[in-house]
Formats: sequence, structure tokens, C-alpha cells
Amino acid sequence: MTVEWIAVDWGTTNLRAFAMGRDGIVAQSTSDDGMGRLDRDGFEPALLHLIDPWLTEGRVTEVIACGMVGSRQGWHEAPYRAVPCTPLDPATLVTAPTRDGRIRVRLVPGLKQVQPADVMRGEETQIAGVLALRQGFDGVVCLPGTHSKWAHLSAGEVVSFQTFLTGEMFALLSQASVLRHGLQGDGWDEAAFDAAVSDALSRPERIGARLFSIRAEGLIAGLAAASARARLSGLLIGMELAAARPYWLGQAVVIVGSEAISASYARALKGLGVEARVVKGGDAVLAGLLMTRAKVNA
Amino acid sequence: MTVEWIAVDWGTTNLRAFAMGRDGIVAQSTSDDGMGRLDRDGFEPALLHLIDPWLTEGRVTEVIACGMVGSRQGWHEAPYRAVPCTPLDPATLVTAPTRDGRIRVRLVPGLKQVQPADVMRGEETQIAGVLALRQGFDGVVCLPGTHSKWAHLSAGEVVSFQTFLTGEMFALLSQASVLRHGLQGDGWDEAAFDAAVSDALSRPERIGARLFSIRAEGLIAGLAAASARARLSGLLIGMELAAARPYWLGQAVVIVGSEAISASYARALKGLGVEARVVKGGDAVLAGLLMTRAKVNA
Repeated sequence: MTVEWIAVDWGTTNLRAFAMGRDGIVAQSTSDDGMGRLDRDGFEPALLHLIDPWLTEGRVTEVIACGMVGSRQGWHEAPYRAVPCTPLDPATLVTAPTRDGRIRVRLVPGLKQVQPADVMRGEETQIAGVLALRQGFDGVVCLPGTHSKWAHLSAGEVVSFQTFLTGEMFALLSQASVLRHGLQGDGWDEAAFDAAVSDALSRPERIGARLFSIRAEGLIAGLAAASARARLSGLLIGMELAAARPYWLGQAVVIVGSEAISASYARALKGLGVEARVVKGGDAVLAGLLMTRAKVNA
Repeated sequence: MTVEWIAVDWGTTNLRAFAMGRDGIVAQSTSDDGMGRLDRDGFEPALLHLIDPWLTEGRVTEVIACGMVGSRQGWHEAPYRAVPCTPLDPATLVTAPTRDGRIRVRLVPGLKQVQPADVMRGEETQIAGVLALRQGFDGVVCLPGTHSKWAHLSAGEVVSFQTFLTGEMFALLSQASVLRHGLQGDGWDEAAFDAAVSDALSRPERIGARLFSIRAEGLIAGLAAASARARLSGLLIGMELAAARPYWLGQAVVIVGSEAISASYARALKGLGVEARVVKGGDAVLAGLLMTRAKVNA
């Protein structure tokens, strides 16, 4: 096995490294050493802890990393590039300071939008991956997650994008708010999800009241946990779709994310007459890092 | 000093007790022994810890308590009464089990609304207090807080009410979400508050996107913490007002709450042409407990 280079997806909560050979992944390793728990001096040791077995004495292995690792609070800042622009530009990679002579680490910059103000880090690589996997794609990429993004692509450039706090609100409300009491348990109620999406789309301003009704129906009407959780998800996704209407209406949409959340978005969009394609988040980020490496060496 | 009875406001996070004499409060005491940190056997000791100095051996002192103490997870359940109904009915008080012969503790039941499902505990006593302080009041009572309530009163009855998760969302978003990074500091930007209220009222569905823009503007445009915090508050209050429009439009509105949050709601309502009166939350709950005691002994 020859490790030619190492691809790294380094977000706030996770670090994922892929040893890349001539024909693709030859090994991979993951840890929870995300940016959120590291100080500046902690990044190199955290990376070496994962990739040390893949390194060779006397040879410099190239590492390309995307995500929050390149933020101001990360290993080293890779300043945002401003849209409209291509999702990746090899000339803008930033080299991180390292002590170990066996690695050279380059960080992918995120994108910013000046007006309305918005930022992304990591998703630009997934978008580059979508373009690599589906050459010539024009349309919209939806990246659901903690901070869901919608990006409009045209002629290979990110024209505009918008971020929603949907996933973080779901996590906070389901784990830390009064609603948590009624959400514990298994199962999923698709009818409750569909009704909540539809409800939020038609009356988005009622979200604050509809959220509390999940608790109240649990107390006085025995609302099941499976229905409560699906309703919470549907309300938040529906509200996002209400605001993202200019992005999906009449557009070709590709969803990039984990399986379960992508399926929920695809289902909600289908109810609105939009047939979205789904690309796995891991596939997109790896395709984007592969494309970055190819362009760096072109 | 003669303690005739004891009034207790017992919520999720706080316990407040008032020793009542012939002419009003003769002593008061507070602890953070809210319902949230007590198990069933912990309520009586927590109460005695505060009120022991006010009790007399060989005499039973009457205690009337409102709030979450009467919930299923509280000391003893005081089942909800269904609206439409008066905010208080002395015949429905529930006696809590006690070991100490010096006290008799009675719990005020909360209110429920079957459709749309909603519940309140403690606010019914504040509403009774508003009616005691402003006899014959017909209109709307707004009770901002962790779970803001809007209640429509007519002919001395609560006709309908609606709860919003506004305060809890503000707490979660400002303390636990990615937004917390840009909210630390002092000061308050009233113009940012006003603009955010107006923004949320006109485009309520955009809330999820506008929330993330607070973070993005902090990162790329140096948004000040005072503006960020005011904007977060304004967006959430504006969204509540958008949904509560049937409550405040063309109505006499009384706001019951703490000083700062009441002022924010009054300011937002004034921008909508509604001149609301403000009653301090503590005054309202005490007036409600006084009225309860008077009716119990009538």
C-alpha cells in the first residue's frame, strides 16, 4: 500500500482522515478531535495521532484539509473567498505551520457572501464534489445539517448561498428545551412530519406557538414521542423551505448530507413537486478533496 | 408581627415565599429550590427551610402556592382546569400532603386549552392578579418569559390563550448555539431591536436564515455584540408578535413580567400602534394569591 496523499475533512466536532493511494482510499481513520475541542497547538498532534501509521520517514506527505480547521479559531486561518466564485481555487490554499517534517498541510478556504452576510467552511468542498460527480451541473445544492446551506450554482460558480440554523435548533430544542420531555423514545411518524412541513410552509410565523403545542399535546393529549419528534423536525424543515423557496422553486436540486436527514428533505421537497437527487455527504467531500488535489498538481 | 398566612410563588427555577400579615407582606424569602431540582419528597423540606421562622407551634398556618409546584412532576398534582373559565376557582385548590402539623398547603391548579392544545401554571394567578388590580378589565394579557403567554380575557374569564417558546429560544440560542460567540458584552442597540422586530413581522419565515446572519455579520462585518443581542431578541419577539396578531390587534393589552422584558415588548407593540400597560410580574402574582386567599375564606 502506497499513501500518495491524505485527504482530511475537519469540522467542529469530528476529524476524518483518508489515506489516498493511486486508485482511491487505502485506509481511513476518524476521531472526535474536532476544531471545537482543540487549541491552536493541538491540531498537529491530533492529526498525527490519526495519520502517523501512513507516514514515511524521509518523505513529505501532502495533506489537504477542508472545514473549520481553516477558521480563525482553527489551526491557521484560510481567509474566506467572496462569491460569486468557483467553489475551489487551488491558488488560495493556505499552508498550516507544522513541526513534523513528514507532512505538508494545506487548508481549503471557505466562502463568504457580503450581502446578505453569510459564510461556509467545508460545504464549498462538497459543492466542488457535486460538480466533480455531475459535470456541468447548474442548479441548487442543498446541504442539510447543523447549519443547513442552500447554494445556487451557475456555470461552475457559486452565485449565492444562504444558511439556516435548522439542525442546531433541532438539537437544542430536542435536547435542552422543555420539549425534550416528550421526545424520548423510538420510532418516526411520517404523517406527523408531512403535516408539520405543510403547516410551517403555510403559516411560518406560527412556529414559536406550534413548538410549544408539542409539549402541551404531550401533557394533555398523550402525543406520542415518535409523532412529537417528527413534528418538531417537520416544523423546522418546513420553515427553512418556506424561506428557501427562491432556491428550490423550479430548480434542479441536489441534496448533500447524511442518509436520514437527506431523506427527510427529499420527502419534504417531493411534497412541493421538487424531485431532488441525493449525494452522500462523505462522497461529496471526498470528491471535492480529490478535485482539489488534482488541480493543485495540474 | 403576626403571620396570618403564607403566599408562595413556586416555579421551575425559583421558590418565593411571602409572610402575609393583616395589612400585607411582613416578611419574604427566596431560594433557588425550584421544582426542577426537587423530587417529590423534597418540596416540604424546601418550603420549611424558608418559612420555619414564620411558623408558630400549636397553630396551623395556611400556605397557598401557585406555579409548577402543582404539576405532575411537582409536590402534588393540581389537575388543569379547562378554559373558558375564570383564572381562579377556590373550590379547585388541591391540598398537598404534609408531615409538619404547623402548615396546611394548598396548590392552585393551572389552566389548559384542549384545542389548540396549551397549558399554563402560575400565569393563571398573575391573570387573576391583573383582574384584582384592574377590576372589570376586558382585553388581552401578555406574559412574556421563558414560555410567553397571550391570554384573551372577557367578562372575568380566560377565553383562550397561546404559548410561545420565545424566551427559551433566546436563552438556548444566546447561551448554547453558535450565535453565543458574537453576543458576549454589554450594551443594547435599540435601532437594531426595532429593525429586527419589523423584519420578523414582515418576513417571519426568514427567521432561520436571519438568525445565522447574526453570526455571519459578526464574522465578516464586525457586528457589535450589543447589536447582535438586540437583533436576536427583536427577531424572536417579532416572530411572536406576528403569530399573536389576533391577540393584540385592536385590543387593550396589559403586559405582565419583569421590567426589562416588559419594556421590550411594550416598545415593539408601540411600533405597531398598541399602547400596552405594564404590571410587574411580582405584583400580579401576589395580587392573584391575595385574591385566592380572600375567596377561599369568603
